[in-house]
Amino acid sequence: MKDKLGRAQALSPQEALKMLLEALRPAPLRQEELPLQELYGRILAEDIHAPEPLPPFARSTVDGYAVVAQDTFGATESSPAYLKVQAEVAMAELPTRALSRGHAARIATGGALPPGADAVAMLEHTQELSPSEIEVLKPLAPGDNVIFKGQDAQQGELLLEAGSRLSPQAVAALAGVGITSARVYERPRVSIIITGDEVVAPGQPLGAGLIRDMNSYTLMGLLQREGAVALMEGIFRDDYALLREALDKALEHSHMVLITGGSSVGARDYTAGLIQEAGQVLFHGVAMKPGKPTMAGLSKEGKPLFGLPGHPGAVPLCFELFVAPTLRRLAGLKVSAPRASLRARLTKAVSSTVGRAQYVRVRVFEQDGQLWAEPVLGPSGLIRTLLRSHGVVLVPPLRQGLEAQEWVEVLPL
Amino acid sequence: MKDKLGRAQALSPQEALKMLLEALRPAPLRQEELPLQELYGRILAEDIHAPEPLPPFARSTVDGYAVVAQDTFGATESSPAYLKVQAEVAMAELPTRALSRGHAARIATGGALPPGADAVAMLEHTQELSPSEIEVLKPLAPGDNVIFKGQDAQQGELLLEAGSRLSPQAVAALAGVGITSARVYERPRVSIIITGDEVVAPGQPLGAGLIRDMNSYTLMGLLQREGAVALMEGIFRDDYALLREALDKALEHSHMVLITGGSSVGARDYTAGLIQEAGQVLFHGVAMKPGKPTMAGLSKEGKPLFGLPGHPGAVPLCFELFVAPTLRRLAGLKVSAPRASLRARLTKAVSSTVGRAQYVRVRVFEQDGQLWAEPVLGPSGLIRTLLRSHGVVLVPPLRQGLEAQEWVEVLPL
Repeated sequence: MKDKLGRAQALSPQEALKMLLEALRPAPLRQEELPLQELYGRILAEDIHAPEPLPPFARSTVDGYAVVAQDTFGATESSPAYLKVQAEVAMAELPTRALSRGHAARIATGGALPPGADAVAMLEHTQELSPSEIEVLKPLAPGDNVIFKGQDAQQGELLLEAGSRLSPQAVAALAGVGITSARVYERPRVSIIITGDEVVAPGQPLGAGLIRDMNSYTLMGLLQREGAVALMEGIFRDDYALLREALDKALEHSHMVLITGGSSVGARDYTAGLIQEAGQVLFHGVAMKPGKPTMAGLSKEGKPLFGLPGHPGAVPLCFELFVAPTLRRLAGLKVSAPRASLRARLTKAVSSTVGRAQYVRVRVFEQDGQLWAEPVLGPSGLIRTLLRSHGVVLVPPLRQGLEAQEWVEVLPL
Repeated sequence: MKDKLGRAQALSPQEALKMLLEALRPAPLRQEELPLQELYGRILAEDIHAPEPLPPFARSTVDGYAVVAQDTFGATESSPAYLKVQAEVAMAELPTRALSRGHAARIATGGALPPGADAVAMLEHTQELSPSEIEVLKPLAPGDNVIFKGQDAQQGELLLEAGSRLSPQAVAALAGVGITSARVYERPRVSIIITGDEVVAPGQPLGAGLIRDMNSYTLMGLLQREGAVALMEGIFRDDYALLREALDKALEHSHMVLITGGSSVGARDYTAGLIQEAGQVLFHGVAMKPGKPTMAGLSKEGKPLFGLPGHPGAVPLCFELFVAPTLRRLAGLKVSAPRASLRARLTKAVSSTVGRAQYVRVRVFEQDGQLWAEPVLGPSGLIRTLLRSHGVVLVPPLRQGLEAQEWVEVLPL
């Protein structure tokens, strides 16, 4: 299908991403062994197995009395089980003296169960009659309020898979089983090339017809948030030879290159030509708004190359839809968590053009215990729009718009 | 109201947080001036006003022809407006020659409008008849596809408020108006004190009855994620004098202190005593599960002090509910975005005890185009539970549980 100007119909964002990910091979990233404190957010390059059982001994999960569960069968408030208090289990001590039938041992949360005990009566469900005798007011089943040795992880059990991103809890899990370092992939390096005769660095004087580079800073921040190393290659004039040299140089030290701006038609053609010459263009143009001129390809060595629109308003969206998923795949991420969003009701209707995915910036606020999404309209590329909004709402390609009061998912951006 | 053991009824999590935030004063944080590249995630200590209008000149938002809108009134595909092509506006150039009535000037996205032009016809809505004449197929209103000078920000207009966290887009906005550095608050320093006779560092040999410190690593990661500096003060025996010394030392160089573990009752009492002696306890015990033994107070200088439960499963939740909001307030954050969550349906019913907020860990997965939340049950504090789940679902205090198929909000944790 062609449009009025004879151009081939653009892919949907989903089709474009799918094509890209199918062509992509993981980058040959180096691996590095890092201590616990440096592992946060990094991606595991090895499977982690528990080197020993966890917990290493049966522990109480509450404050109370270690008991033999059978001694409490049938206990009620009106007909409690009477038990002799045998001994207190001190923390940091593995009790060796077995608990005799009809006895209880005072135990704190985390304490080791004495041999013979198989449950712990919560303090709240006991009554102290004397220092040497208690009543248990509720029956217990074996295992109640206890974590048995190895119940959390058997020795040798797979705890974390290669390709997982290490959350604070995951790093804590390594600490818990006595692992003090792990092998992770190096952070992928991503080059940012800004093109455009009209673009100057923020510190430069702004001559007639010139504008300041914003996209470097958006991309740098988004890349850092993804755990990548952002390399600012600079701002280049719309000069093919110059840009080719910059791209070649970037490809020498980076795993991915983002070329952005040059919002002029000529500059966009340069970018397509550059990507083609460095390898192949996979897609050029996506049926979405904003972000239509997005293009992507692979270098001869298989490194992803993106041509991103120059509009500051389109950059975070194109990053989220195309660059971030590519980067995660490249970085070795295999296990991913579902993406959180905000569910809100639209304050007013928005219209859209059938045939393309339209992303509408919204500001989210709470009123009467409900979240509302207020469309932040205005020309794309406005800084104010970016600063005032919390994310985007998708109007699907087959809809002409969204209705006021409609429930929508807001993708934080 | 008192419970069976004569203890005062614990506060709800909301009440506890409210009490804490009301008593809290912002920390006297130093301010530092940082360049753009180091501003991501930091909190602004000054209001930012646009030093110049943005954009500095009227720009086109599309590729097309700059026109006088009036010349296109009534244009349709069957009865187009005919315009002479006057000149092309090159990028990086401020056109000085005015556009005459009945004329059009080729312009690229981002290009400066010639004087006299007040709209841009999109390329798609034009037809080239010859290099010197075009048809415009749709009528334009003044301002269509144009951002006027200062439309995005007037000179002197407030762009960002003190107390905002700088997103990648916000840093880009600074770049856009030519600001190359900004004053932000220093990162708050938070000390972590681990207590417990039974707790050893991950690298230490694990003797009988001992367990490894996990909470330091969970807290360190969560603090870093919030933009704070985590200071690990060490693991201390349940010895009051020793802990007091550690707390005094921590208070000398930190803005906040987290004391965790000592899961034994005695250790918890120590923590309450420590906080009391250093200033005042605000709350001790919260009607929630897990996390019931959480306590908080303020030092004499007004620094927040937390006693967190020793259970690894409770730490991320207590951090999210109490520590993170306190830290944000302390760090100077005034403008906050709504928190994203996952909306999913419960795969099975969960039961709870009326009177306390119960947080159930869930694993979220997609099936048939819908998100499902599978409760990950098991004794609290299990590493496996933490690693397999994506977040928590709240069973409100007045409900006995949640039903299978029920829609729930999953808080990522």
